[in-house]
This record gives sequence, C-alpha cells and structure tokens, in this order.
Amino acid sequence: MTTKAYGAHAADQPIVAIGIERRAPGPRDVQIEIAYCGICHSDLHTVRSEWAGTRYPCVPGHEIVGQVSAVGAEVSGFKVGDTVGVGCMVGSCQHCAACDEGLEQYCEKGFIGTYNGPTADAPGHTLGGYSQRIVVDEGFVLRIRHAQDQLPAVAPLLCAGITTYSPLRHWNVGPGSKVGIVGIGGLGHMGVKLAHAMGAHVVAFTTSENKRQDARDLGADEVVVSRNPAEMKAHAGSFDFILNTVAASHSLDAFTSLLKRDGTLVLVGVPEHPHPTPNIGNLIFKRRAIAGSLIGGIAETQEMLDFCAEKGIVSDIEMVRADAIDAAYERMLKGDVKYRFVIDCATI
Amino acid sequence: MTTKAYGAHAADQPIVAIGIERRAPGPRDVQIEIAYCGICHSDLHTVRSEWAGTRYPCVPGHEIVGQVSAVGAEVSGFKVGDTVGVGCMVGSCQHCAACDEGLEQYCEKGFIGTYNGPTADAPGHTLGGYSQRIVVDEGFVLRIRHAQDQLPAVAPLLCAGITTYSPLRHWNVGPGSKVGIVGIGGLGHMGVKLAHAMGAHVVAFTTSENKRQDARDLGADEVVVSRNPAEMKAHAGSFDFILNTVAASHSLDAFTSLLKRDGTLVLVGVPEHPHPTPNIGNLIFKRRAIAGSLIGGIAETQEMLDFCAEKGIVSDIEMVRADAIDAAYERMLKGDVKYRFVIDCATI
Repeated sequence: MTTKAYGAHAADQPIVAIGIERRAPGPRDVQIEIAYCGICHSDLHTVRSEWAGTRYPCVPGHEIVGQVSAVGAEVSGFKVGDTVGVGCMVGSCQHCAACDEGLEQYCEKGFIGTYNGPTADAPGHTLGGYSQRIVVDEGFVLRIRHAQDQLPAVAPLLCAGITTYSPLRHWNVGPGSKVGIVGIGGLGHMGVKLAHAMGAHVVAFTTSENKRQDARDLGADEVVVSRNPAEMKAHAGSFDFILNTVAASHSLDAFTSLLKRDGTLVLVGVPEHPHPTPNIGNLIFKRRAIAGSLIGGIAETQEMLDFCAEKGIVSDIEMVRADAIDAAYERMLKGDVKYRFVIDCATI
Repeated sequence: MTTKAYGAHAADQPIVAIGIERRAPGPRDVQIEIAYCGICHSDLHTVRSEWAGTRYPCVPGHEIVGQVSAVGAEVSGFKVGDTVGVGCMVGSCQHCAACDEGLEQYCEKGFIGTYNGPTADAPGHTLGGYSQRIVVDEGFVLRIRHAQDQLPAVAPLLCAGITTYSPLRHWNVGPGSKVGIVGIGGLGHMGVKLAHAMGAHVVAFTTSENKRQDARDLGADEVVVSRNPAEMKAHAGSFDFILNTVAASHSLDAFTSLLKRDGTLVLVGVPEHPHPTPNIGNLIFKRRAIAGSLIGGIAETQEMLDFCAEKGIVSDIEMVRADAIDAAYERMLKGDVKYRFVIDCATI
C-alpha cells in the first residue's frame, strides 16, 4: 500500500512529502489511520543524522494516535474503529528476560524503533508516524480511552508521557514524596503533571524566570529558577527524587546536592556534549544515586494512558500542518513551544 | 589522663610519639586500652592535610580494637575486661532522622569522626587510635566476639570491613547475585571475603596480573584483569552489583557497561582528581545507577562484626611497630601491603 508521508531524503535535506510503502496487515497486525503525531526532539536528531546511523529516506514520528482500519486474522485485542496509539517501539525479541517482564524498552536484543529500526519491510528500516497510515504488531499497539477531542494532545503521551511516567513509578513517587522536575519542556511539563497527579509535592526547576507561572499552572507546588543559587540552596538535601529532563550539558551536582539521603537523580536524556563529571562526594556522603531511565514498557505505557484518561491528563500542544514541520523544528530548537508540536496528519 | 600516642604536629612533619590528654570517663563513657589499630588510607590523607581542615596535633586511627579498662556509672552494655572496637565515629546528634534509623554515618548534623572531629576535650578536636587508650561514648563502642588471637586482624573490620559490608547489604547481595569488587586492596579484599560469605558469585577486578591467585585465595570465583578489554567484554551486562573501592581517577564506563539492567555501581572512595565524566547512555539504556556509600551505622557495624565472627572472617594484615608508621605509609602508597597494616599498640 502506497501511503503519503513526510520525511527527509538526506541529513541536509528538508522534510518533504514522500510516498512510502506499508505492508498489508499480517495475521497479528493492526493497520492504523494516523490522525495525529507529536514532534519529539529525537525526530530532529535522527532526521538530521545528529546521532549515528540514520537511514534514508527517514520518516520520523513516534507519538502516534489514530483509528484502526484493519486487523489481521489473529488479532484479538483491537477491532476496526478503535482509537489507538503507537509509541517509540514497534517490536522486540519477545523472548529475553526484559521482554518477559514487560520491559521491551530494555530488550536484550534491542527493541525495534518506530522509525529507523530494522525491518523486513521496504525500504529495510521502519518509517514512523509523519504519515497517513502505519501497520504494527498488536503487541505494540495501545488503547486510547481519552475523549475524541483530546486526541491531538494525547499523542505526546506516547513518548514524553511514558518517558516521565515510568521513572516516577519505578522510584515509587506518590503522596509524601518531594519530587523535582528539571526542565519545563516537552518532557518536563508532562513530568510536572504526572508527579502532581500521583500526589507528590512537585518542585519545577527552570532556567527561565518567565516560566514561573506556567510551571505552577501545570501543577507545580513550587518553582525554582535554577540559576538562582539562593533559591537552590533553600532546597538542599530535601528531595526524595529528581527527574532531570534536560539533555543539554549542565552541572548535575546542583541537583544531587538537593537530594535527601538515599535520593535518586534520574536522567532521561543523553547529552550531545557530556555533563561535567559529577561530584562523587555528593553521592557517598548521603548514599545518593544518579540513574538513567528509558521510555517505558508496553504494559506500563497502557497503564500510563489509562491513568491519564482517568485523571484527565493530556499534553499542552500546538498543532501544526505537515508542511510546517521544518519550521516547527526551528522553533523547538529555540524552546519556542508550549510544550509539544503535534502534526495534524489530515494535512499530509 | 596523659596517654602516649603517635601523631604529627604539622602536615609536613613525620609521625612521632606525643603525649595527649584523654578525659576521665563520664557516666556514659567506656575507657579502652587499645591493643591494635589499623592504618587506613584516610589516616594518611588527613595527617598530611591532603583533605581540607586537618587540625594539629593530628593523631589518626579509626580501626581500633582493645579491652575495656573502666566504664561510667550509666554504662550498661560493657564492663571492664570486655573486648571491644571503635570505628570511624565517636559521636553523632542522636536526634535526626538518620540517627533515629541507626544510620549515624549520615547524621544530618554530621557525625563526629574518631579523629579530627569537633569535641569539648583538649585540644578541641578528637584524637584517634594511634594511642594507648581512648574514651568513647558507649553508643559508639562495638563488641568483638572473635578469638583473642584474631584481634590484630579484626581491627580493619572497623572501617574497611563496614565500608564494604554496608553497601553489599543495602543493595541486597546474596545467593544468586553476581557481584563485582573493583580493586583488591584494603577495602577490596574485605569486599571479596564478605560478598563470598554472603553467598554471591564474586568477580574480582584488578589492574595487576599478579593478583589473580591472591584474589582467588580471598574467595573470588573469577578474576578479571581490568586492563584486558577482552576479559572485560566477556562480562558485559552480567552484574547485579559492582562495588568499586578504587578512589584513583578512572573510567567508570568500563564498569557501568558490565551491569545488568537495573544494576548499580557503588563508589566508596572520593577521587582526588575527578573520574572522567560517566557515559549517561550507559545508564539510560539499562536503567543502571551510579551510587555512593559511606561506612555504615553502629548497629550495622555490630552486625558485620558478628557476621565476621560467625564466619571466621578477618582481614589479611601485616603488623607494624608504632615507630614504623611513616614507613608503612610509604609502602601503602606503593600498594605494597597485603592488605592492611595494623599497629601493635603495645609498641607505642
């Protein structure tokens, strides 16, 4: 099936309309007409080949929401007309310890990314959600229970939502926790909403004085401008958990020193240029940890979507047309988005 | 009471015999005639003022074993003649959350070190175990259940033992765990013995080809020479826990990459020159952590001593006379000790 999409033919080429092939649904496949697709910073890194190994043509997009238009004979969980989502993964080995535990993102053979991953389908690598249609194994399709008018703002939950939800759950954030969320962007704004909904006392950290009220509106109990040493110091040794969504190189010590004994600073972004080396004494003298976390498993992504539907949580988004993706990238690079661009796939 | 001791009058002065004052035992104090005192690398750092804030005269020593010679009126746990130990701490606030949990090493007011800590006693800072006698609050005195002929080799348990025991316990090392111990020195050799006694599969990491058999003799199931990339690679992604006792600056990535998903690399030494900044992708893609750990609490130190007495565990030591402490320091700096020097305090 030829399907319209938007992508790039090379690292230095713009995002343009292209035709791609989707496979006919196999017995376990779900065919989805894509309604909306969020724009993640990873899309830009990949399409511009800022990370190694981009294959072209590259069609990014892994925050996908749409309707089921066909299902394979063995598909039991979905039927035509269902509202569904697809996130960062469309496959994994299904046989390793990680997959057995529902942690496909840590698949020991490597998960198959929704774009730029290995596949038998033409052209030999997966093509993502900047397209009209996608065909995905039902094991990697999520059910969406939000109202139809919320669907554009649901799309970013599939990456930004689960990337922040999973570590908050894994490190047992809940009532009584004091939680920091560093960076109020695509990921961070979801971190604030989710941690707040989990019942934690949420402190948002931003470098921008002008995001103070915005962060409060998102659900932060307190806002700290991290460039202000006195504001930072007032929170020394007080956090159970800090989720750091900022991938740009910066001092981690400023945040490890805010953790309580046994507190953890979790990073979800790989910096292009390394962070300055962290102060080890900051860890030893309070048994603190620095850890990493990667998206979330399929079962946990479904749990997150259900949690958000129940709590009425969606992303704050700005909708864009498919022919404005490059412009959206440029604005995203300047931080000029509150807080996620979502492509209206009807414009493809 | 004037007591003979060994210490230094300044950072650039040798360790010499000096007279110090010990307080008369107060109601809660235990007076101890010191039989043996281990030599820890921290002693050297402090006495040579390689860390900030050394006060002189400086009498180091926090791996103390001896006999009780007097007790205060309110002391209930010890009597004259008991064999006891004192480790890195002689006081803490006793009122904070950490002290309440028996984690005096993380006391929120700062614990009082056995040497160079604040005290009302002359000369205004605590004086350690390179001495004939010490007077300590009974809350910081440990009971020793080892045989008398083991006592010299028990002394290092009070710092090297608990520093390795505490993280092994905190991160739940036991049967079924695959545990790495990095560095086969004063701390590392205890880490190998303790992890082995806890039932773990123990892999010792050393930079020295000639420590292979030694590490096996200590209880390692496998030995890896960490300079050999092929040997390292064979263990990629396989460890539940790695305890890194090496404080000299080195790449942590070589060890984080050996951890399983959800594994933790724990550091117990602050490097003089920082480690190269760790690869954050190594953490994110397997939800791994880098953490720190500091000695152990008093209750846990007693647990460790009892565990070691039951299992027949002591340190491997070389006894030295008090007038040879400087010479022992020089050999320690060259790594020429298997694996801890202990001062025979009868020679003071």
